[in-house]
Amino acid sequence: MKVNEYVDASTFEKEGKKDYYDRHTPFVHCEANAKKGEPFKVKVKMGNEYMHPDDFDHFISYMQLYNGEKMLGQANFESGAFGNAPAHAEVDFYVVPAKNMKLQATSYCTKHGFWQSKEVEVAVSE
Amino acid sequence: MKVNEYVDASTFEKEGKKDYYDRHTPFVHCEANAKKGEPFKVKVKMGNEYMHPDDFDHFISYMQLYNGEKMLGQANFESGAFGNAPAHAEVDFYVVPAKNMKLQATSYCTKHGFWQSKEVEVAVSE
Amino acid sequence: MKVNEYVDASTFEKEGKKDYYDRHTPFVHCEANAKKGEPFKVKVKMGNEYMHPDDFDHFISYMQLYNGEKMLGQANFESGAFGNAPAHAEVDFYVVPAKNMKLQATSYCTKHGFWQSKEVEVAVSE
Amino acid sequence: MKVNEYVDASTFEKEGKKDYYDRHTPFVHCEANAKKGEPFKVKVKMGNEYMHPDDFDHFISYMQLYNGEKMLGQANFESGAFGNAPAHAEVDFYVVPAKNMKLQATSYCTKHGFWQSKEVEVAVSE
Repeated sequence: MKVNEYVDASTFEKEGKKDYYDRHTPFVHCEANAKKGEPFKVKVKMGNEYMHPDDFDHFISYMQLYNGEKMLGQANFESGAFGNAPAHAEVDFYVVPAKNMKLQATSYCTKHGFWQSKEVEVAVSE
Repeated sequence: MKVNEYVDASTFEKEGKKDYYDRHTPFVHCEANAKKGEPFKVKVKMGNEYMHPDDFDHFISYMQLYNGEKMLGQANFESGAFGNAPAHAEVDFYVVPAKNMKLQATSYCTKHGFWQSKEVEVAVSE
Repeated sequence: MKVNEYVDASTFEKEGKKDYYDRHTPFVHCEANAKKGEPFKVKVKMGNEYMHPDDFDHFISYMQLYNGEKMLGQANFESGAFGNAPAHAEVDFYVVPAKNMKLQATSYCTKHGFWQSKEVEVAVSE
Repeated sequence: MKVNEYVDASTFEKEGKKDYYDRHTPFVHCEANAKKGEPFKVKVKMGNEYMHPDDFDHFISYMQLYNGEKMLGQANFESGAFGNAPAHAEVDFYVVPAKNMKLQATSYCTKHGFWQSKEVEVAVSE
């Protein structure tokens, strides 16, 4: 099982390749700063520009959120949850940080396997 | 395994009972109306008034979202994700509806088992 | 979301009803006695007589194993894992008991929802 | 999040390093040959020689089984399922193959992250 590490899909010139990489890449969206001990919203969302199918035999089956080596949560989706049509699969986690975080997401496509996001640093203060 | 069906914890008079039921109850929070084919945010959140522990041996391990008999998604949490302190565990799903929905959430506490939310109806229009 | 509690499908007279209930019922298969502190095999398997489809839009998506109110594990399956044809979805857990157990399984069919098994008692001795 | 790729822990000389790698490595155990369309048992088990803790704050939280890029199943464990003592976490999947498989497992330790197994080839015949 290959781990597809993050690449910046926007740098690809071929439309098909850009589409393939972008729609399979999970992105971590959150503020750059968080307060210690307070809920902090972290969105994990597939693709910046391109949408991924939500077909019965081809969909985003799960997304995970990690802080360094530590998993915070995993969201599993049934096919059809995103309307049986191309969509940006997404989920919001609310984590309560104790110290600085290095957030990274993973995703799994039932046809094209396991993908990692870019790492996002969050500064956590009192 | 007992399925703890929804009860309105606010009607209990004893503080301890009210606390116990409220903090173990998942609630579905969303708009009453949705547009067919468009992402629709559904928050699943534990407790209205009372917070649940996030201890290593006592935490909310998963929450599920159903539309009628159909599961849309499941979010699993590692202990510590909510700060190792009392919190309202929560997650936002983004579902893309095709027709009217009857949403219901479940949750699992590693000490006190399986709980269901009240059902929430969502009218879906073109 | 309805919780389909265990019924003995073999008592139904109508073939279709017997088939429907049996193929959606998880069964816990294990020895009646276990040794404290030693791995103990527990099979969770769908249906005694009838097999359930493994189609992209209709399959057994997960099975859980509980000891009383406490979940021990959950196995999630991707459609196709059981060959895209009718099968008895199954999984073996290996739990290490400390005291007597009351085991019960649940299962989720992507079309027909959430089902519970009969409870199985296991005597655990030193 | 680092993906710990398979290494042969038995080649390490230092006891501590050998222990650390072996107990975090998932292994795929199965026959080398399978029949098309028939259930085929695949055991995923942590460690060959060394056991991993099952403490509340340090345990094997999930194991996955892949065939090439395709996930077949994921088993999640609650802490305590393996007796709150060192154990070889394990689960048996029963997959129904259509053609030759390249099986690989992953595992996640709540303290030491994500690990991959060696790939195991299975020849599938009619």
